[in-house]
Amino acid sequence: MSKSSISTNAKKVNSFLTSRLHGRPTELYKAASHIMVHGGKRLRPYLVIKSCEILGGTVKQALPAAASIEMIHNFTLVHDDIMDNDDMRHGVPTVHTRFGIPIAILAGDVLFSKAFETISSDSHIPEKQSRALVSSLAKACVNVCEGQLLDIQMAQNQKMPSESQYIKMVEKKTATLFETSCTLGALSANSNRKNIANLSSFGKNLGIAFQIVDDLIGVLGDSKITKKPVGNDLREGKKSLPILIAIKSAKSTKREIILNAFGNSEATKNDIKKAVKVMQSLGIEKTIRKKAIYYSARAQSSLSSYVGPSKKELISLLNFVVKRSL
Amino acid sequence: MSKSSISTNAKKVNSFLTSRLHGRPTELYKAASHIMVHGGKRLRPYLVIKSCEILGGTVKQALPAAASIEMIHNFTLVHDDIMDNDDMRHGVPTVHTRFGIPIAILAGDVLFSKAFETISSDSHIPEKQSRALVSSLAKACVNVCEGQLLDIQMAQNQKMPSESQYIKMVEKKTATLFETSCTLGALSANSNRKNIANLSSFGKNLGIAFQIVDDLIGVLGDSKITKKPVGNDLREGKKSLPILIAIKSAKSTKREIILNAFGNSEATKNDIKKAVKVMQSLGIEKTIRKKAIYYSARAQSSLSSYVGPSKKELISLLNFVVKRSL
Repeated sequence: MSKSSISTNAKKVNSFLTSRLHGRPTELYKAASHIMVHGGKRLRPYLVIKSCEILGGTVKQALPAAASIEMIHNFTLVHDDIMDNDDMRHGVPTVHTRFGIPIAILAGDVLFSKAFETISSDSHIPEKQSRALVSSLAKACVNVCEGQLLDIQMAQNQKMPSESQYIKMVEKKTATLFETSCTLGALSANSNRKNIANLSSFGKNLGIAFQIVDDLIGVLGDSKITKKPVGNDLREGKKSLPILIAIKSAKSTKREIILNAFGNSEATKNDIKKAVKVMQSLGIEKTIRKKAIYYSARAQSSLSSYVGPSKKELISLLNFVVKRSL
Repeated sequence: MSKSSISTNAKKVNSFLTSRLHGRPTELYKAASHIMVHGGKRLRPYLVIKSCEILGGTVKQALPAAASIEMIHNFTLVHDDIMDNDDMRHGVPTVHTRFGIPIAILAGDVLFSKAFETISSDSHIPEKQSRALVSSLAKACVNVCEGQLLDIQMAQNQKMPSESQYIKMVEKKTATLFETSCTLGALSANSNRKNIANLSSFGKNLGIAFQIVDDLIGVLGDSKITKKPVGNDLREGKKSLPILIAIKSAKSTKREIILNAFGNSEATKNDIKKAVKVMQSLGIEKTIRKKAIYYSARAQSSLSSYVGPSKKELISLLNFVVKRSL
């Protein structure tokens, strides 16, 4: 992945976002921009732009949809942080920690509203395209809400979910916005159904691979990079794929060591470290990487009929996502 | 206002809403429909339908927009109840009281998403119209968020707002959805700019009159009808127009009696009753009714160039809103 290509596009997206996210009361827009200002690689806008370019469109054509998907992504972050009671993100206090829950709810709501305003009120976007963009984005938001509730229910349920239940949740909660980024990019290029379907499939599979690797990092990642304690997801009792597979495949003592750390707020640092070591000894990283590569291969094959620099950049992003080190 | 006309239309709207608000997990849609199922007169959908009819459109043409505005209205109720920490609405527990804050946030979010899906994914709506509906609804949502934050800031501010600050807040927070109901109705009838502007102006002024009378009921209303304690808004320290005017116009002892009850959780029932009596003696009802009639007259004049049964029904709704008894 070319870092310069990512950051050149991110600058354009940021300046477009800034031009849309202001108004009164200023505190509302300060809260709405809080997470964006403090970080984020603008991966989803990058997918919109590259999906538009690969089909012959321009960055300018893609910008409204790119900005709108970033607003929707941030809306989900702000509301999810309230639901999950998370205090920190990108190394800064979350919106509700900084501004209080009422303003955080409103900050999410105004991001949501501005996203739809952006793709419906821009006179450069033809009417047919605008309708398709809105319809696709609205359906994506429904999916994300359903996925988030599946996640909440999964966490509350005493039973462990099956792998397919887990993947179904990830498809809705996380992969939807990656899929829709590519759909919106293809729509912005005014392309045909076949191309839209190919790009959507690329985004969806990339999204699943992204989450699987993210979950691996969440439990086996280097705490210097994750900026979270070692084995964080294990301690928090997160029913993520690596943890599900580890618990399922471990026998006797190994299983007990993992279960003793899992969701146990009284587990010592040493208990967690031991459980992480057991997971490593079970070869969880290899198993999970294989699954990520499976989705990555599906993503790659969706682009088999295209050529050119934008394809290279999309594949390079895909490889970065799957091969991120722990 | 013909009750049968309201309820005939409400039935059509309800059946349209039910057809859109289902999916999995079922708990999400149960939470999203919770407030709707337990009440509401569907005033905003009625405005959409009648604004469409007065310009020659049909109920069928108006239904998607009518349902979408009701979803947005309910989204604001669900999120506002969390922000305001309100336990009861329409005589039943609020969504967050019944389902918890995380699911209530999601219920609001899915209502929002479904509203935009409804007006963008219906193949009966022409593309140009769909874009105009979405653009208008998205702008309305931005306004409502800004209005809600103005309201929160007004409540937190030690100073009392001026009458014009209060009206500005009401225009954004409450009147916007009435205004937009009429705009969406006119757009659904595929009408021209002049007609859209007339209907929007009708809705906006009706909305302001509605809130002014609502605030009057909130402080001087019969507790049997409001189902809230006598002088409820006074006890809660709500900076509503009747209270602002009462505090401004009262002198010496009378002023002290009102200020002693205002936002004072330790005030006795008798303290509140005394303050309510003082407000009555100041002629607050007459003053406030006059203001409501001012906006009602503006609303009525916006419809001066129309005739027919839909006009009668709109005027009759306007009169009902302004003349509601305490």
